[in-house]
Amino acid sequence: MSDAERTPVSRRRLFGMAGAGAALVGVGAAAGIGIDKVNDGSPAQAATTTVDFHGVHQAGIVTPTQQNLHFAALDVTTTDKGKLVQLLRAWTDAARRMTAGQEVVPGGAVDGAPTAPPGDTGEALDLPGSALTLTIGFGTSLFDDRFGLKAKRPAQLVDLPLFPKDKLDPERSGGDLCIQACANDPQVAVHAVRNLVRLGFGVTEVRWSQLGFGRSSSTSRAQLTPRNLFGFKDGTNNIKAEDTDILRDQVWATAADGQPWMAGGSYLIARRIRMHIETWDRETLDGQQQIIGRTKGSGAALGQTAEFDPIDLHVHGQGGDPIIPVDSHVRLASDETLNGAKILRRGYNFVDGSDGVGHLEAGLFFLAFNRDTRKQYIPMQNALSSSDAMMEYVQHTGSAHFAVPPGVSDTGYWGDGLFT
Amino acid sequence: MSDAERTPVSRRRLFGMAGAGAALVGVGAAAGIGIDKVNDGSPAQAATTTVDFHGVHQAGIVTPTQQNLHFAALDVTTTDKGKLVQLLRAWTDAARRMTAGQEVVPGGAVDGAPTAPPGDTGEALDLPGSALTLTIGFGTSLFDDRFGLKAKRPAQLVDLPLFPKDKLDPERSGGDLCIQACANDPQVAVHAVRNLVRLGFGVTEVRWSQLGFGRSSSTSRAQLTPRNLFGFKDGTNNIKAEDTDILRDQVWATAADGQPWMAGGSYLIARRIRMHIETWDRETLDGQQQIIGRTKGSGAALGQTAEFDPIDLHVHGQGGDPIIPVDSHVRLASDETLNGAKILRRGYNFVDGSDGVGHLEAGLFFLAFNRDTRKQYIPMQNALSSSDAMMEYVQHTGSAHFAVPPGVSDTGYWGDGLFT
Repeated sequence: MSDAERTPVSRRRLFGMAGAGAALVGVGAAAGIGIDKVNDGSPAQAATTTVDFHGVHQAGIVTPTQQNLHFAALDVTTTDKGKLVQLLRAWTDAARRMTAGQEVVPGGAVDGAPTAPPGDTGEALDLPGSALTLTIGFGTSLFDDRFGLKAKRPAQLVDLPLFPKDKLDPERSGGDLCIQACANDPQVAVHAVRNLVRLGFGVTEVRWSQLGFGRSSSTSRAQLTPRNLFGFKDGTNNIKAEDTDILRDQVWATAADGQPWMAGGSYLIARRIRMHIETWDRETLDGQQQIIGRTKGSGAALGQTAEFDPIDLHVHGQGGDPIIPVDSHVRLASDETLNGAKILRRGYNFVDGSDGVGHLEAGLFFLAFNRDTRKQYIPMQNALSSSDAMMEYVQHTGSAHFAVPPGVSDTGYWGDGLFT
Repeated sequence: MSDAERTPVSRRRLFGMAGAGAALVGVGAAAGIGIDKVNDGSPAQAATTTVDFHGVHQAGIVTPTQQNLHFAALDVTTTDKGKLVQLLRAWTDAARRMTAGQEVVPGGAVDGAPTAPPGDTGEALDLPGSALTLTIGFGTSLFDDRFGLKAKRPAQLVDLPLFPKDKLDPERSGGDLCIQACANDPQVAVHAVRNLVRLGFGVTEVRWSQLGFGRSSSTSRAQLTPRNLFGFKDGTNNIKAEDTDILRDQVWATAADGQPWMAGGSYLIARRIRMHIETWDRETLDGQQQIIGRTKGSGAALGQTAEFDPIDLHVHGQGGDPIIPVDSHVRLASDETLNGAKILRRGYNFVDGSDGVGHLEAGLFFLAFNRDTRKQYIPMQNALSSSDAMMEYVQHTGSAHFAVPPGVSDTGYWGDGLFT
């Protein structure tokens, strides 16, 4: 029996009452736009749906996960802070339009001067809104000497440690900035990233970029829990948009956390997790279920009968061993095991062609938001990397950490609190 | 004025009457299943739609293009012809079930013996049919010495020449077999390829694999013409499912073409075309339209007003130059220029992350079906590679050629005509 199993704790313990009870501050708070304006994100969601860009928080965090992702990490190639701010303003204007289902500039794709490059690249011209959300973040490296931002680096935005068994590719890691585009049409997500990248010409360039599909975790109780490429339901116990108390405790940063410009923001961890699906597929059903700690069909935790039955880590089987094994994924990732820590996962499945040795280059592009990566993601990943039976089948090949600023007011721009 | 411009020809000239008029023969012909059973493939298509697997022709050729693609090329790793045939039988059974929205085997993902690996990998368990089609082809290399198939190699299945400006990556080219999975949910397409690959363990392995989205060409008049990543409508003049005469002339192989086992089949050319979208985006609107030969907004050919107005290559502007430039894409790819040759295009847009030097690794995964690659695709691509103004912005990085056998009867298996 593990220590964690013996010591159930309240998730409230993690931050204590000061943090947990602190009110949100920040531009746009009065607008009251946040989780109450999200859409249902299910496959039946109307293609014409749009998600409001403005609000206390950026859209694309608790917004019910759309079906497709294009995520890009960019490096800033100028040392001119003014140019960076100018770009963030331009990006915000473009994002306002694109998330409303419009071109980057009015008539941009086809009605501009014929002797100038079009203001919009055009491939989304005939496509509906598709619930596009655009969410940006500032990477750890942005807070180096170049832009004088060192004093504004949040303590929560640590350099992630190298976890046991990490095999990180520098070309799939890091980045000064990130853009997360989610939509129910991949072409709409790609169009948005491409046009923001284009606006950044001379200021930023793409460092790495990842497409994903299949919503490996749901973020709303209105959504069915999707399945990852191990074939298991993923995100049953995820923080959901409806969990306002937990979101306040564990996702949204506050001014009291140390950097007032981050109030209403969050911290995003991106991890490219290669999954050795061919090896996994040769594991028995029983073995797979023991590794995950859940039943493959229903998604119920072992020892329970339905997907959303609460996990009970203390049930023992006939031989005296816990029914949910000590090295199973759900036990190690459980908030009960982790001193109450939870994270909001928002990852996507991916297949990036094949790996050159006969297998599919497949996996999970893990995206998670939390309030303090030091207290939430890092302890969780340390536990998983060290002990999770699933580690035999996965390998972390990319890693990045971003401070995701709060939402934007009608007249503001992305990250304005950091630069003003 | 080019020669082609002076010499309009009938597209009937290409094959002559013997080929053009020959009746289809082959298993399943009596079933009458073909273009009359396709679905509309539009974004509004019901998620629960399924496409009949059986028929004179394989599904996935004239089936209205679904939104997502997973294409895999495989090498056969055994020299045992019996094992290959056994796999084709197993693949066919699995394809029958998966295209009907079912697991590979009944209860395969979750109800098998707990001490055996599941018969289905499970990630599509809760997903509807999504109009999945599975289409297979036999590569040029399959007809080497290994399986005694040399005498059955169709004359049409030539080794593609190296075209001017090709920059082919061997790791993205060739393959003994291919699987084209199209669906309106990428996870359904990926699940299908993965499970066929899994059934092939010990017989085949993945050589390369490509995901795509956005249906760069429509194959039915019921579909809107989608846009490629240059932002232009693509496929306006494509062969459509409704063009039964043209399909008979230019897409479907007949017994009279030389290999009776191919009657009702077709030849598939796969080309991975990297598009330098960042460079393209700096071209003026006028320049882009001159290169394509169409108006970006409406898709009308230059000199016309609406998308489907017939192209007139003979209209001249004020300076005496043809309004559709001599080096424009639509002129060079026109059947009028190409002695009547047309192809059925079925490509998909792709973004495979970034290229390591600051750009998106984006392009078009070109898929085209024709009846005789020697008379259709090769002359077309020679003209384009040599003269197309668009070549400044694209690069062919992968290439493969497959004989796509006819459709399967209720009791047959993929390619049974080749092996029996």
